[in-house]
Amino acid sequence: MKGIMKNAMSENMEDNGSLMLEGRNAVLEAFRAGKTVDKLFVLDGCTDGPVRTIVREAKKHDTIIQFVTKERLSSMSETGKHQGVIALTAAYGYASVEDLMKRAEQKGEDPFLILLDGIEDPHNLGAIIRTANLAGAHGVIIPKHRAAGLTAAAAKASAGALNYTPVAKVTNLVKTMEELKKKGLWFVCADMDGEEMYRLDLKGPLGLVIGNEGEGVSRLVRENCDFAASIPMRGDIDSLNASVAAGVLAYEIVRQRMS
Amino acid sequence: MKGIMKNAMSENMEDNGSLMLEGRNAVLEAFRAGKTVDKLFVLDGCTDGPVRTIVREAKKHDTIIQFVTKERLSSMSETGKHQGVIALTAAYGYASVEDLMKRAEQKGEDPFLILLDGIEDPHNLGAIIRTANLAGAHGVIIPKHRAAGLTAAAAKASAGALNYTPVAKVTNLVKTMEELKKKGLWFVCADMDGEEMYRLDLKGPLGLVIGNEGEGVSRLVRENCDFAASIPMRGDIDSLNASVAAGVLAYEIVRQRMS
Repeated sequence: MKGIMKNAMSENMEDNGSLMLEGRNAVLEAFRAGKTVDKLFVLDGCTDGPVRTIVREAKKHDTIIQFVTKERLSSMSETGKHQGVIALTAAYGYASVEDLMKRAEQKGEDPFLILLDGIEDPHNLGAIIRTANLAGAHGVIIPKHRAAGLTAAAAKASAGALNYTPVAKVTNLVKTMEELKKKGLWFVCADMDGEEMYRLDLKGPLGLVIGNEGEGVSRLVRENCDFAASIPMRGDIDSLNASVAAGVLAYEIVRQRMS
Repeated sequence: MKGIMKNAMSENMEDNGSLMLEGRNAVLEAFRAGKTVDKLFVLDGCTDGPVRTIVREAKKHDTIIQFVTKERLSSMSETGKHQGVIALTAAYGYASVEDLMKRAEQKGEDPFLILLDGIEDPHNLGAIIRTANLAGAHGVIIPKHRAAGLTAAAAKASAGALNYTPVAKVTNLVKTMEELKKKGLWFVCADMDGEEMYRLDLKGPLGLVIGNEGEGVSRLVRENCDFAASIPMRGDIDSLNASVAAGVLAYEIVRQRMS
């Protein structure tokens, strides 16, 4: 009996809404079925065949791998039968950047994408996906590292928009921007030192870049933008909430495209 | 010793950031010091002199009173010495509507106020106060009933804006609107059946009304608005996040006032 139980799969929802997979078979099957694994935890020092195979699959898919102690892994485990590996998979599926571009093409519209350079709060992520849907954007692009993913909390905050507006997850935001530039996109980032948004021409194929809640857009990403747009600030504090800023900028784009 | 302890004041922060006051003296002093009490819990059936005095003070200040069982009160209490009364006070102070109008006058600007008709999420409240500050609004007005107050969570989400942008709490939003109309204000509410916001004239002395997260602006409040403004919706779902909608509308007002 114990031998059978050892190979049992375990699927549990973590607090943040990621699906937790425990055990070698469950994790390996997830990779082979093409599921997006947000993060893989591996027992440090464990180098037997099956675990090496899993790590190889993870590297192939560019998954974040974290080597942890037995104590850490056991405290995460809900079944006590992790066999040295625990994977966190996205609660919702990701699209590819090509899917987003195809959506614009099918609608016969200039592409309008929203890129999030390190949004960490799943509520902000969800609210921005909601805004993207209503502002007529063709999709949202998020980076793999240091950013909120499509957890249940993000899905809830999107108020159903996640069923309509695709989200793509990419390894390197700058590289993705370079590829999209070749397809004719211009990029504008939110930056308080930028040109006032009303004075910029925000029509045409466009990617709107929103930065991290605390630090804004990172240097490399900003350098790869064609314009920087600022929202007029008439108050005493520094910045708007990230999802509010995304909304204000997205709707300036809507206004310009309507007129 | 026990007699002394019975009269001891107790101040504790609740989870939502309200300050909890327990015991007859603490609660009565709060009223007499002019502190805003968000809610008063009184032991049901308790009619002795001091408690009657507290209830009378509460009614005078139009505080929400809830009569509860001894079990409920004891489970709320952190000291076990509530003496039949527990009060929740705001973590931050409220201003008066006159304070808000004076602020506009001092700046030599047309008044621009944001009224929240039943925003329940303290994060939305905080984000809207943050937006109000940066959009140059002179203050925010919230109703006493069925709405988030200035808890620590709201203050945190305001990112410091609460130190600059005053918030007034009123018993009856419609009555407040009627009084402000006499002072020359126009009111526009967010309503998806309204006129597209770009086509409205949003200059001049103005109150922007944002409705509840789920139900929007209530009927009576909407009937008392001069205009209804809609944000163009080009997507599949119903509505934007309330704080995003407030941001988009507030910045349409900013745009029109700048041009």
